[in-house]
Amino acid sequence: MAARFYCSQIGDETARLDDSESHHALHVMRLKVGDDLELFDGQGRVCHGNIADADRRQVSVAVSRIVDSARPNRPRLVVAAAPPRGDRLKSMVEKLTELGVDEFIPLRTVRSVVDPRQSRLEKLRSTVIGAMKQSGRNHLMQICEPCEFSVALRNATAAGQSVWIAHPGEAAGNAVETVQRDALLLIGPEGGFTNEEVLQATDYDAERLSWPEGILRIETASVLFAGLLLQRM
Amino acid sequence: MAARFYCSQIGDETARLDDSESHHALHVMRLKVGDDLELFDGQGRVCHGNIADADRRQVSVAVSRIVDSARPNRPRLVVAAAPPRGDRLKSMVEKLTELGVDEFIPLRTVRSVVDPRQSRLEKLRSTVIGAMKQSGRNHLMQICEPCEFSVALRNATAAGQSVWIAHPGEAAGNAVETVQRDALLLIGPEGGFTNEEVLQATDYDAERLSWPEGILRIETASVLFAGLLLQRM
Repeated sequence: MAARFYCSQIGDETARLDDSESHHALHVMRLKVGDDLELFDGQGRVCHGNIADADRRQVSVAVSRIVDSARPNRPRLVVAAAPPRGDRLKSMVEKLTELGVDEFIPLRTVRSVVDPRQSRLEKLRSTVIGAMKQSGRNHLMQICEPCEFSVALRNATAAGQSVWIAHPGEAAGNAVETVQRDALLLIGPEGGFTNEEVLQATDYDAERLSWPEGILRIETASVLFAGLLLQRM
Repeated sequence: MAARFYCSQIGDETARLDDSESHHALHVMRLKVGDDLELFDGQGRVCHGNIADADRRQVSVAVSRIVDSARPNRPRLVVAAAPPRGDRLKSMVEKLTELGVDEFIPLRTVRSVVDPRQSRLEKLRSTVIGAMKQSGRNHLMQICEPCEFSVALRNATAAGQSVWIAHPGEAAGNAVETVQRDALLLIGPEGGFTNEEVLQATDYDAERLSWPEGILRIETASVLFAGLLLQRM
């Protein structure tokens, strides 16, 4: 597989990498004029080409072939999780991108402790692109603005999404059968959802998911339950 | 939940934390004489008690109650994965511990690039204990010695384990139904298993697992497929 780069605007005959992608091509991957590469625009457009021109800071690509790659033929999955601390958030976003999750919402809950600012959200968008280069995914995972728990629930129901909430307890299980509609997966903060939050979700017909063997960290629960839902879509 | 600490030898009336756990209790969690805590020995023995005595370096615990916690009532899962680089290995071990995986084998394959030394394996054993404190798990995940691919296959078959291999391709899927026997899950290095390795696994009746939406990193595949297998056990 030729090295992959992100390019938001792929022309029919030429494309130009931005500074960061040019740097990656020239100084990390050490590509030279004539070398093959693959570009993706995050909307499904994929282009094969080679480097036509490169100065120290910018790479121009001669496009040889463009393919429109279709979205996976399944319902959409939105993961709304209370952001974990530090690098765990970045690692979680990377893994959700690899799996194919469509949107990530940083969730504000009663016990949330991390509320990423705009600069952090921008960095997470770069993380998504990094993961797409490596995994071969061609459609961006959207990093949404932080959202209150109750608003996320209301929006999901208005959009006709099924709602799934990870919360330990005897009433819960993880034997997901088939997921036929778009879905919202809710993952709580380190201290868990409050009882009121769980009741509120139940009012919206949320189905509970749990892992009987132990308490999972935020990022572990996000990746695991996103995987279980995607597998059943 | 009282703070949890690891103690390999829990007596009927008293227990003594080692240096590292004492440090954690006194200087990280800032516990004092009289404070409640929970100890686990990694073999299923769990003790409730409180701090009877503490000097600057060592904590003695007065045991008030001992419970024997049973292993989960399901087949065992062994994950043999080519170790990913850097902190990704640590993070993977943490997550496999949370999920309940029984053993981790650092797998030597044709394209493996990381072969952890003894000191690294010891650190991973500490990572397991750290994850057990947080997740509530009471039985150690064993960190085994590194093992050649062909030896891992042979040992698994000799032990009557079913074998699962993560490898992309059309012949593969991930619709795991029920897993009734102990299982070995094989995860390849960044460059993937060689065709010869896949054929060799097929000779041992390995079932192939894949994720159609993209190429997963080692640690993502390990966590995801371990979760899918455990869910079906």
